[in-house]
Amino acid sequence: MLAPRARVLGQVETQRVVLHDEADPLRLASGRTLAPVEVAYETYGVLSPAADNAVVVCHALTGDAHAAGHHGDPARPGWWDTLIGPGKPVDTDRFFVVCSNLLGGCQGTTGPSSTDPATGHPYGLDFPLLHMGDLVAVHRRLLARLGVERPVAAIGGSLGGMQVLQWAVEHPGELHAAVMIGASSRLTAQNIAFSAVAREAIVRDPGFLGGQYYGDGGGPKAGLSVARMMAHITYLSEQALAEKFGRRLQGRGEDVAPVPRFGVDFAVESYLAHQGESFLNRFDANTYLYLTRVMDYFDPFTDPAGAARVAAAGTRSLVLSFDSDWRFDTAHSMRIVRNLEHAGAPVTFREIASPWGHDSFLLEIPDYHATVRAFLGRAADERAGRVGG
Amino acid sequence: MLAPRARVLGQVETQRVVLHDEADPLRLASGRTLAPVEVAYETYGVLSPAADNAVVVCHALTGDAHAAGHHGDPARPGWWDTLIGPGKPVDTDRFFVVCSNLLGGCQGTTGPSSTDPATGHPYGLDFPLLHMGDLVAVHRRLLARLGVERPVAAIGGSLGGMQVLQWAVEHPGELHAAVMIGASSRLTAQNIAFSAVAREAIVRDPGFLGGQYYGDGGGPKAGLSVARMMAHITYLSEQALAEKFGRRLQGRGEDVAPVPRFGVDFAVESYLAHQGESFLNRFDANTYLYLTRVMDYFDPFTDPAGAARVAAAGTRSLVLSFDSDWRFDTAHSMRIVRNLEHAGAPVTFREIASPWGHDSFLLEIPDYHATVRAFLGRAADERAGRVGG
Repeated sequence: MLAPRARVLGQVETQRVVLHDEADPLRLASGRTLAPVEVAYETYGVLSPAADNAVVVCHALTGDAHAAGHHGDPARPGWWDTLIGPGKPVDTDRFFVVCSNLLGGCQGTTGPSSTDPATGHPYGLDFPLLHMGDLVAVHRRLLARLGVERPVAAIGGSLGGMQVLQWAVEHPGELHAAVMIGASSRLTAQNIAFSAVAREAIVRDPGFLGGQYYGDGGGPKAGLSVARMMAHITYLSEQALAEKFGRRLQGRGEDVAPVPRFGVDFAVESYLAHQGESFLNRFDANTYLYLTRVMDYFDPFTDPAGAARVAAAGTRSLVLSFDSDWRFDTAHSMRIVRNLEHAGAPVTFREIASPWGHDSFLLEIPDYHATVRAFLGRAADERAGRVGG
Repeated sequence: MLAPRARVLGQVETQRVVLHDEADPLRLASGRTLAPVEVAYETYGVLSPAADNAVVVCHALTGDAHAAGHHGDPARPGWWDTLIGPGKPVDTDRFFVVCSNLLGGCQGTTGPSSTDPATGHPYGLDFPLLHMGDLVAVHRRLLARLGVERPVAAIGGSLGGMQVLQWAVEHPGELHAAVMIGASSRLTAQNIAFSAVAREAIVRDPGFLGGQYYGDGGGPKAGLSVARMMAHITYLSEQALAEKFGRRLQGRGEDVAPVPRFGVDFAVESYLAHQGESFLNRFDANTYLYLTRVMDYFDPFTDPAGAARVAAAGTRSLVLSFDSDWRFDTAHSMRIVRNLEHAGAPVTFREIASPWGHDSFLLEIPDYHATVRAFLGRAADERAGRVGG
């Protein structure tokens, strides 16, 4: 008797590959070159013989290559494990799923904390400034290395969705389908303002040392922690914070006429302090600077030819927003939809009801998951020729 | 021939008075005592012989005693000069207007930067934690010193309005009318979160020195600046930021495909950097900690007897919100209205249309000003017995 098929991904491993070396450097949008470029990535599922079932997952600002499965402890799955796996909306029984740490990142892919071959020291601020297209270029090179020319789809939330949009606009026809969740085609002044203050907190920390803080084990801990705490407020809706914490006090009885004190007292303060602190263990301050700056300048519809190319190529887009997201609210998604529709590109748009704010894209929300599942399934059927496009 | 009457306040001066000394210390809500307590204040208009025309102005987090008129340069008027003056909504032809720097402040009133008589050094964090009622106690003592027992009204925006509410609840009948603009009776988890991160930025700055930074001329400049920049984002609506700055670049031509760079590039970054920097010249980091903490714990309707006392005393309330204010949105004002109305207290509520967010209370918005003018005029008439209450 055969054992029932496992319905979980189980243990997975992060792989590393050098995609560019001195002989074949990465040519950046700025004109600069970069080498070596090493990438950390994971894959789930099996690539079909025709190499026509790949789905690329693009991560957000603080994500990494470990999107699904686990690294030994099933209780600590990847950041999008609710969405990706056997029988899940990004179905690894059907798709070959690839997720890599972004260029400029700090979780295995070349970034400002990597060694600059010119000096033998970490790049720090000598790392070149990046364009959204540079992140996509590395995704594409990795796919080529894995034997994939044209993925069924790319999917991402927030900054992840912005990469997907860049990909669709810059390399028309390469993606059969594009899934952009809680994304933006152009940050508002308020969006930029929040990121600017976060960067200010980092670079004004005396531990920043002009970006060359790697040697001493210190770094701009206070600044990075403050940046993360502030950003985290914007990732949750006011309602989510109210429901999770309200005005509850941490480690005290009832909150009737409490005696005021400084330090962590309200539960929400404790939560934010924990978010700030734990972030230090897994993230590099320079990566925070570089990737937020990529977002600030992103503006792919400035040239109307971009959307026209998407339309001509026939790439299908799914654009999703969450009604309580105030970091990239529905107006951001609608702007993407409007630009693509105006050019005549096929777009499906849904605003998903969720009280959890921007971070909703990480959560298991039935309406959201069902929509992704249906869209990707149809895209794969179309790609396989089972349904007319 | 008489000169036409001046329609501007003209030059005014900040006065100082010692309200409490060692022999008669201020008894705080916490049970601690404080002495000396000196207060910086300004007055505009003339107190009537019956001392029945006083209007008290309570300032917000970063305000000061200089609400109206100017200190020598007419181009640099007080922070509420649009609202206060001869013929203006808070009409100094009719009212005797008093504004003082708050207890715990840093603009002439005793606060953490004042000398602790026990040590001969600035208090720093040895300054006692304050309750909203302590701020009101100092306003009341100042009025008594000026010969006023019962003001016609107290008026304030944001933290200013919170003092007015505390006053009405704690000293029923003393205020004939209470004007609360963009205020709150209870901060949400998100409100507390923003203040918590601001405090974190300050206390984690190495220049903070546990609050004893006064000697070296340094202080937590980076932290205070970051705190101010972040708070400033929350004082403006997204729309206001978009209209003022959009994605415009500072000192560059058009924003088509700009070359990314770090540092201040977008106009909104330049604006925030200026806000953060100029704040350092006028504000004390410890005051920021103390006054934000007063707001966090404020919750006057926890005891339902408070609203009942307001109702029994017949104090008339005007509660105003601005539809684009997301720091203290209309729901905050509605909570005040609901609590007072439920107890049977007379309340007038208006949501004012304004695109400018929380800071709208500082601006000259016709609907807002007309409402304050009418309400105060009627309150004064009632108080003078010219209209039935």
